Amino acid sequence: MRPILTAFATSPDRGQGLARDMRVRWALEELGVSYDVQLLTFAEMKQPAHLARSPFGQIPTWQEGHRVLFESGAIILHLAEQHPGLLPTDPDARMRAIMWVFAALNTVEPPIVERSMAWVLEREQPWYAQRLPMLDERVRMRLAQLSAWLGKALWLDGDFSVGDLMMVSVLLRLKSSGLLDEHPQVVAYVARATQRPAYQRAYAAQLAVLQNA
Amino acid sequence: MRPILTAFATSPDRGQGLARDMRVRWALEELGVSYDVQLLTFAEMKQPAHLARSPFGQIPTWQEGHRVLFESGAIILHLAEQHPGLLPTDPDARMRAIMWVFAALNTVEPPIVERSMAWVLEREQPWYAQRLPMLDERVRMRLAQLSAWLGKALWLDGDFSVGDLMMVSVLLRLKSSGLLDEHPQVVAYVARATQRPAYQRAYAAQLAVLQNA
Repeated sequence: MRPILTAFATSPDRGQGLARDMRVRWALEELGVSYDVQLLTFAEMKQPAHLARSPFGQIPTWQEGHRVLFESGAIILHLAEQHPGLLPTDPDARMRAIMWVFAALNTVEPPIVERSMAWVLEREQPWYAQRLPMLDERVRMRLAQLSAWLGKALWLDGDFSVGDLMMVSVLLRLKSSGLLDEHPQVVAYVARATQRPAYQRAYAAQLAVLQNA
Repeated sequence: MRPILTAFATSPDRGQGLARDMRVRWALEELGVSYDVQLLTFAEMKQPAHLARSPFGQIPTWQEGHRVLFESGAIILHLAEQHPGLLPTDPDARMRAIMWVFAALNTVEPPIVERSMAWVLEREQPWYAQRLPMLDERVRMRLAQLSAWLGKALWLDGDFSVGDLMMVSVLLRLKSSGLLDEHPQVVAYVARATQRPAYQRAYAAQLAVLQNA
């Protein structure tokens, strides 16, 4: 039996590859792991059967025999530990790659998600226009710092790793905002990552869900 | 030479133990690792010397010989991998403990930080009172799910682990909000964790910084 990844039956991003199953699909393609997908409606995500594997009622989850994991960061780290290709073998380099996963998820993603959620839930509110410059500024600060760190490097820390995969997954949520375009080195970094065949295959796989719906 | 942890010279929380060095101090005490502290002003955190070790200009960082790490999640995972006490030895249980670190940092902490930041930066704004119920609701949803998961268990998944340490560190930021009090099992969980001698020693160590300032 192949392992099972859960994903949205109807993704709110309409197949742009921004849901959190996409980053796991990308890792699975990089690592050459085959998998099956179980699609869930929003109602199913709040049912006891799903809450038993994902206490916060989210996708993705990863089931591999008796092992059940939730949280995209944990799933990807687990996969990268099991299969070669996304974590350096040198212990220091390995730890730094993992560090960039945390940086993507805990420092870069939160202001990006906050900005997106304000658009989704508050764009009709009278305060939205007044708050937006502040939300943009928080994202801009992280992008400027990331750009300064990257400089002319191809990847965050040596070879492409799980850290780059997660950082790019997070940055892609900014695509429609125009904020990425202020940092050509970040734009080039994201383009380099999304041109990888593994990314392209994963993108096609998540898009096919909607096209077959 | 002992390893060096960086922390705020003057913590914005005035010693309540909510800055992100506290969770690392706690892990260090649980693991019995001695360390030195380098205190940084906000101006020093934006200087090239600090940005070279922490590209996003944050505390804490961890220096151990030539090894430099940033991101509290990465530092704690590194320490837990190096020293016994915070990660189970069984591979599945180990992965689930790490999963709870990601859940704390990427699912539970963001709405808590968003709520705190709104208080810090927007409480004088006319929209603050209108937005607060929405911010509270996002936190409440995570607390209700966490409480349902915990049930009558002492810890998130078997023995006390790095996952509990991170989850409790994140929940402590809600102490002054009153929101925790709606979930007695979460209150008891936090109390159980903060009664640990290692937490108490770490709390005293970070408080001493301010008292000696």
